[in-house]
Amino acid sequence: MKLSVNLGKRSYNLVIRRGVLGRVGGLCNLGRKVMVVCDAGIPARYVKTLEAQCEQPHRVVLPKGDKSPAAWQAVLSALNAAAFGPGDMLAALGGGSVGDVAGFAAASYLGGLPLCQLPTSTTAQMDSALGGHCGLNPAGAPGTVSACRQPVLVAADPDLLKTLPPRHYAAGMAQALKTGLIASRELFELLEAGEAEKDIERTLYLCLRCKADLVEQDEEAAGPQRLLRFGYTPGMALAAAARGALLEGEAIALGMLPMIESRSLARRAKAVMKTLGLPPRPKLDAAELARQLADEAARYPDGLEVAQKLTPEELGLLAQEI
Amino acid sequence: MKLSVNLGKRSYNLVIRRGVLGRVGGLCNLGRKVMVVCDAGIPARYVKTLEAQCEQPHRVVLPKGDKSPAAWQAVLSALNAAAFGPGDMLAALGGGSVGDVAGFAAASYLGGLPLCQLPTSTTAQMDSALGGHCGLNPAGAPGTVSACRQPVLVAADPDLLKTLPPRHYAAGMAQALKTGLIASRELFELLEAGEAEKDIERTLYLCLRCKADLVEQDEEAAGPQRLLRFGYTPGMALAAAARGALLEGEAIALGMLPMIESRSLARRAKAVMKTLGLPPRPKLDAAELARQLADEAARYPDGLEVAQKLTPEELGLLAQEI
Repeated sequence: MKLSVNLGKRSYNLVIRRGVLGRVGGLCNLGRKVMVVCDAGIPARYVKTLEAQCEQPHRVVLPKGDKSPAAWQAVLSALNAAAFGPGDMLAALGGGSVGDVAGFAAASYLGGLPLCQLPTSTTAQMDSALGGHCGLNPAGAPGTVSACRQPVLVAADPDLLKTLPPRHYAAGMAQALKTGLIASRELFELLEAGEAEKDIERTLYLCLRCKADLVEQDEEAAGPQRLLRFGYTPGMALAAAARGALLEGEAIALGMLPMIESRSLARRAKAVMKTLGLPPRPKLDAAELARQLADEAARYPDGLEVAQKLTPEELGLLAQEI
Repeated sequence: MKLSVNLGKRSYNLVIRRGVLGRVGGLCNLGRKVMVVCDAGIPARYVKTLEAQCEQPHRVVLPKGDKSPAAWQAVLSALNAAAFGPGDMLAALGGGSVGDVAGFAAASYLGGLPLCQLPTSTTAQMDSALGGHCGLNPAGAPGTVSACRQPVLVAADPDLLKTLPPRHYAAGMAQALKTGLIASRELFELLEAGEAEKDIERTLYLCLRCKADLVEQDEEAAGPQRLLRFGYTPGMALAAAARGALLEGEAIALGMLPMIESRSLARRAKAVMKTLGLPPRPKLDAAELARQLADEAARYPDGLEVAQKLTPEELGLLAQEI
């Protein structure tokens, strides 16, 4: 399946196909220096499959899940050491973190290099590899730093998801639930019927089509694209308060629940979460959660429009509801 | 004097006026959180003049001349610690390095914050504060990393140049010489007559008008704006080979000389350099210079179009000519 993102000069294709990792060379130009950015968690055969198609492959391996400025600098050093010039390319082969760090490097090195996104996690295939938004997490201030770099290609190979730990796979499905809730009855019903994983290509297609539409309307993510942050403000507060006990996707799924106005729809969403294997809300310190929520809401007032106007007591009540 | 840079939604004004630092509040909104970014070299009274106009001033002081990723992270930490949100502003009060680091932070924090450029050095007032290009210098790879963030205002106060060390003042005048050579006979003749410093407002105006025109035509600096890199490729190679013995502006002035096709014009440019107090070329190791030149030329092939096709011997010859 193929989709296009129409952004004038920055337009590009999304390809969703089993085995597409072995055919990237037919979709974009690998006949130049290519810096493969991956992390320590990626199966070696994925890297080999990609590098075998590159004329001049280079590689930088990041610590697993590292989205720090140091990871970005590691990519810059690798580009510089291999004398990458304008027109040479980066290929992000990994989950969301790898895509973000490679994207930030592609945006900032020599005025911008071409970038190919080859997502290997559920979240990255459904959401983060598309749209150009690339964030870093400086110590103590996650989610505050980003650049925008549209890729020249996004190729999502659902076969790669088979090697994910089941918990990570499920956490990524939170993105499908989000898309189902904000934009696609078909996808929500697929999830309710427990068919989303079986028909993963259709699930990916529906997620990416929704995001592509929003990115086309609002490349800078200052308008309609903010819809994609549905559940993120409470979700990121939950993730912070849980101190590592929740994966980001799990926290975002939980963060959507209090934002659903219809009680019956919220019940159905909760049932979908159970079907997907997403965990219930863990016990958390209420004061800490309220603090994190206030903090998130101050940064992203749009994510929780009322939060800035809430008193500390009201924030506490909302925190209990999440 | 006032100029405008017309870039659609990102349009802004340039104001060149003695004493304008004391009247920034009349030109942009200082009734919000403002992070004053400066470095240890800035006179304290400049900072006070600006902060006195801000409703909620905050300050981050960088090491002098530091354009490293660490300096950028220091600004991010300050923004985060003071809970800056969308709509709050950064004000870069300093030379080119401060403008670059503040600009990179403004580009990357929370999807982009407004930025006010208040340049205090000759180079920054004539060139770097305008155009949105903000670079960082990672260790071992200066000039490879940048973002683009258009300011909401550039206010150049020529009175601030009076506190500059004479050598730095002169090095900055290399930008005026460049503009004279690439775009303004009036400015070149002003320089030849030794009047450019006396009529510094006119000099600034001619430099900024030239750059504003090029930025309007080519915001991404991929086309006509590359003209502003005239002399930079040999100049940056000279600066690197001189290992600190040349200021950047001095090196760029020297780098322009071999790029001038007319011998008589080159002689006149050399005479201007002498009038401005710019130094002659120091003795340098020829092999080292050739290496640096090859390196620069590989990164910026447009800056020295032939260099990529030159043999090492030819590069060596060109290096001798610089």
